[in-house]
Amino acid sequence: MRDVAIVGAGMVPFGKYPEKTLADIAWPAVKQAVVDAGIKKADIEATYCGTALGGMMAGQRILKKLGITGLPIINIENACSSSSTAFREAWIAVAAGVYDTALVIGVEKLTKFGGGTLPLEKEDWEVSHGLVMPALYAMRARRYMHEYGLTENDIADISVKARKHGVWNEDAQFRKEVTREEVLASRPVADPLKLFHCCPSGDGAAAVVICSAEKAKQYSATPIKVIGSEINSGKYMTGYRDMTSPEITLRGAKQLYEEAGIGPEDVDLAEVHDAFAIAELLYYEALGFCAKGDAAKLLADGETSVGGKIPVNPSGGLLSKGHPIGSTGVAQIVEIVRQLRGQCGQRQVEGAKVGLTHCTGGGVSGFDHGVCSIHLFAR
Amino acid sequence: MRDVAIVGAGMVPFGKYPEKTLADIAWPAVKQAVVDAGIKKADIEATYCGTALGGMMAGQRILKKLGITGLPIINIENACSSSSTAFREAWIAVAAGVYDTALVIGVEKLTKFGGGTLPLEKEDWEVSHGLVMPALYAMRARRYMHEYGLTENDIADISVKARKHGVWNEDAQFRKEVTREEVLASRPVADPLKLFHCCPSGDGAAAVVICSAEKAKQYSATPIKVIGSEINSGKYMTGYRDMTSPEITLRGAKQLYEEAGIGPEDVDLAEVHDAFAIAELLYYEALGFCAKGDAAKLLADGETSVGGKIPVNPSGGLLSKGHPIGSTGVAQIVEIVRQLRGQCGQRQVEGAKVGLTHCTGGGVSGFDHGVCSIHLFAR
Repeated sequence: MRDVAIVGAGMVPFGKYPEKTLADIAWPAVKQAVVDAGIKKADIEATYCGTALGGMMAGQRILKKLGITGLPIINIENACSSSSTAFREAWIAVAAGVYDTALVIGVEKLTKFGGGTLPLEKEDWEVSHGLVMPALYAMRARRYMHEYGLTENDIADISVKARKHGVWNEDAQFRKEVTREEVLASRPVADPLKLFHCCPSGDGAAAVVICSAEKAKQYSATPIKVIGSEINSGKYMTGYRDMTSPEITLRGAKQLYEEAGIGPEDVDLAEVHDAFAIAELLYYEALGFCAKGDAAKLLADGETSVGGKIPVNPSGGLLSKGHPIGSTGVAQIVEIVRQLRGQCGQRQVEGAKVGLTHCTGGGVSGFDHGVCSIHLFAR
Repeated sequence: MRDVAIVGAGMVPFGKYPEKTLADIAWPAVKQAVVDAGIKKADIEATYCGTALGGMMAGQRILKKLGITGLPIINIENACSSSSTAFREAWIAVAAGVYDTALVIGVEKLTKFGGGTLPLEKEDWEVSHGLVMPALYAMRARRYMHEYGLTENDIADISVKARKHGVWNEDAQFRKEVTREEVLASRPVADPLKLFHCCPSGDGAAAVVICSAEKAKQYSATPIKVIGSEINSGKYMTGYRDMTSPEITLRGAKQLYEEAGIGPEDVDLAEVHDAFAIAELLYYEALGFCAKGDAAKLLADGETSVGGKIPVNPSGGLLSKGHPIGSTGVAQIVEIVRQLRGQCGQRQVEGAKVGLTHCTGGGVSGFDHGVCSIHLFAR
């Protein structure tokens, strides 16, 4: 397996584009990534397109718009981890030498479903009994509050941080700060979660160009190396489950650090899957950024804000940047690439050398998510 | 890249199962493949699940039923080539050494959409103007009739052959012979295509277990080697296009034979994508089984029937076996595995050593399909 690096990154601002087709939402992100890489269209040997609800042949529809045709195009679905999984598949193929250069796209158009929570699979027993995503995370929040004395203020402060970071990100869906009081006064969704604890629905796309590390030298002054990639599915345990501990993330993080030969203390920043504010707190612990029960303290001390020791979601995260689900995995990677290159202006994590992306999802699985894909990058 | 082999194969009879969930349609096929391989569930290191319209997390929903959890599960969409593409992705990962053993599933439940033609993407310009699949193939048929003197009888004889083979296949949706007269008297769909020229809609699933060729020795007395794998997308050419020549299949076949170091004369049998009877004739030529314009003669001479020199679709093909679209790619591979093992009873191709599968589709692309995935196998 060869070393692989990212040489181009692009995305469109996440938002609501009901008047645009999926392809028209996505092609500018692809163009930006290709131009950023400084490669010719003809150099792209394969494309992996992640989308959860984009319909048949999403990648083909997008690339047709740009005249990138004839190549292998593989569409990947893995709920919220669709494009994170697509990235991993592209990484395997390039690392194996099947392709030298590949494009990875994440795209989603959620406005086509109207508003509200995702159209989950009614075949799933837990979903059919009402355990949609906000309900699931609300239960986790209540349990965490019970076990560790977490307060509603603590959870609200995640949203406050996310919104603050989002102000600095031109590609974020929300670019306006909120106060703790505004979060707590927002409309209830699933107790204790309020509207501002939940990521917005929307549309968007992101793309990266990857190639072998050897080839990357000819394209980019600052190739971003892929130093770890893991994917897992949930274990669907019955009986007692620790709702405050995301088993799939814990397991994936352990594998990832072993693979890369580093520990959580070596990570300079992370983009994690904060679909609901409580989730980010759970992931601080599961990813090893603090001990079990200490997440609220890590946040309160400012360590996960830009300027702290382990900034989390400097992009604004899903709570500010938005969460067009299939787009999120690659959009997280775009943020890490820009951070490791030092291109992030006011939200720049100074001196960042190692970044982590964490993407998890899948309504089918109840507490133990259907998929979790985690990556590590270094400059 | 290591050599890879198939050690287990299974499928459920294709048909209409509106009362079953997608997961309940699929799990017996997976179980059959795992039992056939003689491996333990815990030996499966990753799963690639191909489905076009199965909804989010199809693989996770299926494997949960069997208690196969915790592993990487990747869902792949590529229209009619969904599970054929999934197979290729699994092959890459095992050949690269990322996993030793992987499961590949193809699954679809089309009864959930009612009857009729597929729910194609209205964003596609050609589809939005009425170029749904039967219309597309009808145009190709008329052009071929004009260019090469093909008759409606010739096209009908493809359906007659498919139905004859299907009688011998327990997993086929149609198991009753039809005459040329019955085909021609069936309801018109898109002139000159009649109902019996079109594959049926339905539900189904198929699965295979693959592993490194080295590891295959410990599992199977007759591992089936993967000797070639290609995937392409269409070139979306504007202006004059030869409607009688499926460019994407021609290009893929050329790559495939070069990769495997053999020619079409070395292929003992093939499962090709006969979604419409005319298509099979075009693919005889594109795959190199006869010269351009000679397809009807090859058929009339009985060379593509079981007992001929290059039997095509001994399973009954999509026309008899059915075409639950995401299932088809793996179902074709299941047939080749069974043929190369000599397990096919009355439809057995005697002495078969090399088999080819050809799977193409994608309504988005008009004449030049959105995806074509071709594989070669040998015992």
